[in-house]
Amino acid sequence: MVDSTGWIAAFDRMLWAPLQTNLVPLLAVASEAELPTDSEAELGPLVLAGVLLSLVIIYFASKLVGEICARINLPPVLGELIGGVVVGVSALNLLVFPEGSASGTDSFVINFLQTTAGLSPEFSPAAAEAIGEVISVLSELGVIILLFEIGLESNLKELLRVGPQAAIVAVVGVAAPFAAGTAGLVLLFGVPTVPAIFAGAALTATSIGITAKVLAEIQRLSSREGQIIIGAAVLDDVLGIIVLAVVSSLAKTGEIQIGNIIYLVVGAAVFLIGSILLGRLLTPYFVTLVNQMQTRGQLILSSLIFAFVLAYIGAAIHLEAILGAFAAGLILAETEKKKDLEELVIPIADIFVPIFFVVVGARTDVSVLNPLDPNNREALIMATFLVVVAIIGKVITGATVFGQPGINRLAIGIGMVPRGEVGLVFAGVGSASGILSKPLEAAIIVMVILTTFLAPPLLRLVFPESGAEAVEPAQTS
Amino acid sequence: MVDSTGWIAAFDRMLWAPLQTNLVPLLAVASEAELPTDSEAELGPLVLAGVLLSLVIIYFASKLVGEICARINLPPVLGELIGGVVVGVSALNLLVFPEGSASGTDSFVINFLQTTAGLSPEFSPAAAEAIGEVISVLSELGVIILLFEIGLESNLKELLRVGPQAAIVAVVGVAAPFAAGTAGLVLLFGVPTVPAIFAGAALTATSIGITAKVLAEIQRLSSREGQIIIGAAVLDDVLGIIVLAVVSSLAKTGEIQIGNIIYLVVGAAVFLIGSILLGRLLTPYFVTLVNQMQTRGQLILSSLIFAFVLAYIGAAIHLEAILGAFAAGLILAETEKKKDLEELVIPIADIFVPIFFVVVGARTDVSVLNPLDPNNREALIMATFLVVVAIIGKVITGATVFGQPGINRLAIGIGMVPRGEVGLVFAGVGSASGILSKPLEAAIIVMVILTTFLAPPLLRLVFPESGAEAVEPAQTS
Repeated sequence: MVDSTGWIAAFDRMLWAPLQTNLVPLLAVASEAELPTDSEAELGPLVLAGVLLSLVIIYFASKLVGEICARINLPPVLGELIGGVVVGVSALNLLVFPEGSASGTDSFVINFLQTTAGLSPEFSPAAAEAIGEVISVLSELGVIILLFEIGLESNLKELLRVGPQAAIVAVVGVAAPFAAGTAGLVLLFGVPTVPAIFAGAALTATSIGITAKVLAEIQRLSSREGQIIIGAAVLDDVLGIIVLAVVSSLAKTGEIQIGNIIYLVVGAAVFLIGSILLGRLLTPYFVTLVNQMQTRGQLILSSLIFAFVLAYIGAAIHLEAILGAFAAGLILAETEKKKDLEELVIPIADIFVPIFFVVVGARTDVSVLNPLDPNNREALIMATFLVVVAIIGKVITGATVFGQPGINRLAIGIGMVPRGEVGLVFAGVGSASGILSKPLEAAIIVMVILTTFLAPPLLRLVFPESGAEAVEPAQTS
Repeated sequence: MVDSTGWIAAFDRMLWAPLQTNLVPLLAVASEAELPTDSEAELGPLVLAGVLLSLVIIYFASKLVGEICARINLPPVLGELIGGVVVGVSALNLLVFPEGSASGTDSFVINFLQTTAGLSPEFSPAAAEAIGEVISVLSELGVIILLFEIGLESNLKELLRVGPQAAIVAVVGVAAPFAAGTAGLVLLFGVPTVPAIFAGAALTATSIGITAKVLAEIQRLSSREGQIIIGAAVLDDVLGIIVLAVVSSLAKTGEIQIGNIIYLVVGAAVFLIGSILLGRLLTPYFVTLVNQMQTRGQLILSSLIFAFVLAYIGAAIHLEAILGAFAAGLILAETEKKKDLEELVIPIADIFVPIFFVVVGARTDVSVLNPLDPNNREALIMATFLVVVAIIGKVITGATVFGQPGINRLAIGIGMVPRGEVGLVFAGVGSASGILSKPLEAAIIVMVILTTFLAPPLLRLVFPESGAEAVEPAQTS
């Protein structure tokens, strides 16, 4: 509280107060008549102003740190996360969130609204709660749109065509870190089973976005290794989402029920396969319908109706909304509208997705990772353990590739290392459901940051730029 | 309540209940363990689910009625408004809004969440309030993005180049219906001054979108008349926004203060001109900065940061957030990024703007327009009066065009008739601030609907398709 209030007070003393008092009495009269918030009805415009201010902070943080990361050759998504940490509860405390409604009133957004827009202190808790609720839903819409976009960029046919190698890499790459991570946390650190499973699950999913981007940068996307990595990362994403749905539902009930697991696995499979089969039956009608529509936005709105209906079903049957959004993307990727839709989704994802990553970072209290505090030793040791398991668990999966003499197995393993979007989704869902202890949640965030951070330089090391070794070019379509 | 509950109960009896009881006990066990909402922390996913469901309803209503309107040659925006009326408080009562938090629990969204997603009745008021708040802010973001887009599509240089004719048409076209409407409401109907001014102001602004679209359809956009109409409509939009800012601020204080008017006019002028001048100084740096950025979404996010900062300032100095968004659009339209930005904004506007129009329609209680109820006579007479003033007030402005022998003055006047976006903004702002009585608000909505409804056929009547008369083609660039 000291920091932001001090800053505001200084701002108030130096700039705002003289501005208000020196302008002609006219202005003062008009201001005085309007400044106090004297009813709930007056809150509406202030909530909107608070949301606008929060979005400015979120976008600014995401771009500033994202650009710095891009310049030092790190994935921009990492910058959005770190930007969130900087503006969040760990550092500057600029934003408000629903869970912190009591303490939200000491955030910069609320102070700034009080100073510049006439929010009265008595209505500040109500304003903080409403703003936090809206930002929270916007960030959840962000992850829904991200998963819709990932689904749209995936290709069901390609996904089936990449063959046994990719499937084995994906399955081993999910199973090995999951088993080693969960077992290690339970046996070595005495973590209760459910949080341990959750943290183990967070180790599973490769970030398809980061991996594909790094491969494109070193011009290896169409190499044999590159194709196996991309195929496995796509499968990995699907497996990771099913694992997420399973473990986050488990997290909600607080214990492991075999019936529940079967229900969820069957539910996830039936929901995903059923919606894809049904979707493929219906997509010709969807395309015909969209083609006959004459009003603006027909494709994107029809697609979002479809995605939000599946997301709602996913949420209503106690899976996750993101699973429905992913399925919708995968189904629509099969239609002739894929390219058009991808282009339309880009700017929408651009404005929604950073809200999710910044909010995940902003909600994370990274002060538990301060090595000077002896209470943090356990969190730091856990983080180190998770990072080691995350890297080794994926590297050994490269060794499972069969029937491909001379293939760079190490490169395939390293290519699967970066955890990104889905790993952060685990941290976010775990944080929202309260299942993860703060040290464990922070350890997962550190694991995601470090694997994402280390993978690009490591991949360049073990996988020199195209042309440096005898490459058998795969189909360069 | 009777309708939606009956429908839900039938759905429950026929589909949901058998589904739940007939599926293996496994499913029942898992469902029972999870169905009840037993803490505030559980509300998060349900609020998200409620928002998703609300968006599906909003998008579906906007597209269904919008498409019907497009097919019978009416502007789709009219369909979004009517779609909103259909799903709103007047008819099906599907959505929830902040002001109706007490009665929000009998809406379809809340009933559906209770039936399908396990929302418990005791938490329904809290869920209804949160969902209503989020939808309300999303609709306000919708109008902010709409005005940003209108600003972006405007052209400051063209706006100055269209010359004296357009300026006079714009000024007379704002002043005549404003004066006649306000005076008539006060003198003939005894409406208090502030609401009368508000309703009069709602008569001012021509819908540039609708007018441009109709002119394009009849291939008259580049005719001399078409150019004057478009130029005047652009100016009209700016004047309308200043008038809106002035009258909505007046509405908040409840009375007319000369000091307040001067403060607001000066404030609006200083803010708009100042931000445009300052913006033009800064845009070269903005363009350089965006060109140097390397991460995804750099243009749209930088632009939205700029737009939201101006929108925040607009809201904080007691003007309107939309005025800042419009200024930001106008400034960015001057840069080399205009075309790129316009393309990026299209899908974003496509998903946000319908929320605004549908919510405006949904909040409107059109039952006051039932002619069978004698209490409604005043509202209906007012609506008739407003429609007549709205049409005649614009038609006479066509006669003010000077120095253009042989020009189709009637066509220019009729071209200015459709009120659209901005007229609805007045109704929405008036409704939100509580300044408009229900009959007067409904009368404004009817005026917007009817002028928008009548203008396209009228314009075709007085302005035959290009080539039917001796056209002097203006620069067909």
